[in-house]
Amino acid sequence: MKEISGGVCAPLGFTASGIHSGIRKNKERLDLALIYCERECNAAAVFTTNRVKAAPVYLDMKNIKSGKMQAVIANSGNANACAPNGMQSAEKMCAATAKELNLSPERVFVCSTGVIGVELDTTPVENALPALAKSLSKEGAEAAAQAILTTDLVKKEIALEAEIGGKTVKIGAIAKGSGMIHPNMGTMLCFITTDAAIDATLLDKALKETVKRTFNRVSVDGDTSTNDTAVVLASGMAGNAEITSEDEDYNTFCALLYKVCEHLARAIARDGEGATRLITCEVKGAKDEKSAEKLAKSVIGSSLTKAAMFGSDANWGRVICAMGYSGEEFDPEKVKISFKSVKGEILVCEAGRGLVFDEDKAKEILSQDEVIISASLAEGNGQATVWGCDLTYDYVKINGDYRS
Amino acid sequence: MKEISGGVCAPLGFTASGIHSGIRKNKERLDLALIYCERECNAAAVFTTNRVKAAPVYLDMKNIKSGKMQAVIANSGNANACAPNGMQSAEKMCAATAKELNLSPERVFVCSTGVIGVELDTTPVENALPALAKSLSKEGAEAAAQAILTTDLVKKEIALEAEIGGKTVKIGAIAKGSGMIHPNMGTMLCFITTDAAIDATLLDKALKETVKRTFNRVSVDGDTSTNDTAVVLASGMAGNAEITSEDEDYNTFCALLYKVCEHLARAIARDGEGATRLITCEVKGAKDEKSAEKLAKSVIGSSLTKAAMFGSDANWGRVICAMGYSGEEFDPEKVKISFKSVKGEILVCEAGRGLVFDEDKAKEILSQDEVIISASLAEGNGQATVWGCDLTYDYVKINGDYRS
Repeated sequence: MKEISGGVCAPLGFTASGIHSGIRKNKERLDLALIYCERECNAAAVFTTNRVKAAPVYLDMKNIKSGKMQAVIANSGNANACAPNGMQSAEKMCAATAKELNLSPERVFVCSTGVIGVELDTTPVENALPALAKSLSKEGAEAAAQAILTTDLVKKEIALEAEIGGKTVKIGAIAKGSGMIHPNMGTMLCFITTDAAIDATLLDKALKETVKRTFNRVSVDGDTSTNDTAVVLASGMAGNAEITSEDEDYNTFCALLYKVCEHLARAIARDGEGATRLITCEVKGAKDEKSAEKLAKSVIGSSLTKAAMFGSDANWGRVICAMGYSGEEFDPEKVKISFKSVKGEILVCEAGRGLVFDEDKAKEILSQDEVIISASLAEGNGQATVWGCDLTYDYVKINGDYRS
Repeated sequence: MKEISGGVCAPLGFTASGIHSGIRKNKERLDLALIYCERECNAAAVFTTNRVKAAPVYLDMKNIKSGKMQAVIANSGNANACAPNGMQSAEKMCAATAKELNLSPERVFVCSTGVIGVELDTTPVENALPALAKSLSKEGAEAAAQAILTTDLVKKEIALEAEIGGKTVKIGAIAKGSGMIHPNMGTMLCFITTDAAIDATLLDKALKETVKRTFNRVSVDGDTSTNDTAVVLASGMAGNAEITSEDEDYNTFCALLYKVCEHLARAIARDGEGATRLITCEVKGAKDEKSAEKLAKSVIGSSLTKAAMFGSDANWGRVICAMGYSGEEFDPEKVKISFKSVKGEILVCEAGRGLVFDEDKAKEILSQDEVIISASLAEGNGQATVWGCDLTYDYVKINGDYRS
């Protein structure tokens, strides 16, 4: 497995583009992304678990049932959620894209991200589509990655390749994250492309399993959005024998997919709204994986722990406290907690009791770009890793007046 | 029912005091509170649901089984949670208090609040107890209220009286809140005194029912602490016929207790760490009360909603979004949302869709000290009110470096 360039355009058959259509007032910001495959793809998607779903989510949930897609159209600046005429807007975006690319509208996957509750005027989208389609190219991945961002500070993309069935298979992806990121999934969009030949049912299974251990383990602020979507399109153009069972080829594909999603999950956490650092929480020795995940998510979602991480404060009491209110059963007297980073590791709690530790050393460890909170229990072999970020002044600033 | 002065000392039989013992380094801060009743009281208590509990919580859970208490000793500055020799420290505090007051240690209720994980040296407590006991007086309620505060900005106390069975019955209480306030209960201590004569079992029932609808409906930051405790001591000195069944007298007592706890719950929310305003969320028309409570708690706990409230931003999309991820079933197309304050009410969402509204009017309404987020559904008659606060720069500041 190795990293390659090209993002979503790296796999055979895919082109992409991004444009400023006018949904956003700021002309400097791209706001409309298109990903296209020259062939019809097997496709699978996962969506937000929020009871309130954006209109495009409902439309995609219907259309993905075919297991076939050929293009993705996505805008930023307006979430088209709880908005007047939401379904019409989503359908119009699909129809306009389909017409421009000469596809059936059911083969166009549509996503929106941005403010909730404001009608999405599709006129800018319709007007921009000819130019957007015309600019589709193998170099367009970055523009597409830029066009889906909201309060994200950096674009998020990756591409990998590996050998499957004697053929080189590529996988690429772009994502947006930032605010409203919480298990399960945040205002997260992730578009994955691959040239692997894989059956649609297995593609669906691979995506669901992977999202569970990656995007569903990221928390920025505890808010789960109305628009979260991850979709994967497989062109089959790599020429490998189609993956139709859970064999070695399937496992290799899953490993590739995991790596891509893990990279993006970490990138989303690191670029959480206002975040100054990536916080990883690993829990070991829990009753089972599910319990470990629940404990780790409770820690990574604790505002007090997040604020302590912002202050590089080794306040492990908040860590064990968050574990305590996770709802999971465990013996507090067997908990061990340490903080880790490139500067080393420091044990701060053992047998559920505070240790005397070198505060300067702890400060140094906690001041790094990536900090790991490691907790171990003595309940079993369950372990899980989740990702989040610190809680900062900027988070409050960004979200105190987002709509203006 | 009318409000009276005197806090926990208002009811017949009770005195209180507060002192600087030296647990805190800052000599200006009181850090040890004592409440004493001249007679043995019927008593009941509720405790944190956190799996990790502070040592005094374990001790109190054992001692309260008798349904009898006569004194409360509480320190701030150290939570005595996950701390070396925690149980010994808690027992020493009880023993020293009991000795000074000539009581059995089992009749002394002990509480601690402050930093987690640091050993509580009881020497200052033991040294301060003679002076603390000596200064017990009917005027001591305020000093006791001050001594239990941590990052709270204002003391929280109240006293009420009403007629029960032809006699004037008084009830008083002090509380501390601030950070780590979340259903169920935060780092919340609440000490309630009354001169009502009431059976210990009914007192327990009344307290549990009341806490469910008051303190368990307050959220400051989503963190549930290791130390939360509410205790009520009933001296019986008002002279009413002892309440031994759920009759009219019981209902009057419950109404008094509710009023006291509601007042303190609101005071705790308003004085949440860094808060600039009290946010109340009321949900109506839910399937049932439990569902309404869960929906309202999801809104009041949403970091994005809290940050929007800080910015006086009528971003109702975050409200409906938080309702959506609450886990409760409802029809989003029937949701109505408005914001209210002393400046009026503004409807911003109807039938799950955004309305065009006067932004200046919304800003004015949202800029007040107390803001109500009101959401109604069309699922049934369930309703609930919960209290919280906005998320501010100061919350991050306070919690970024709490231990220093």
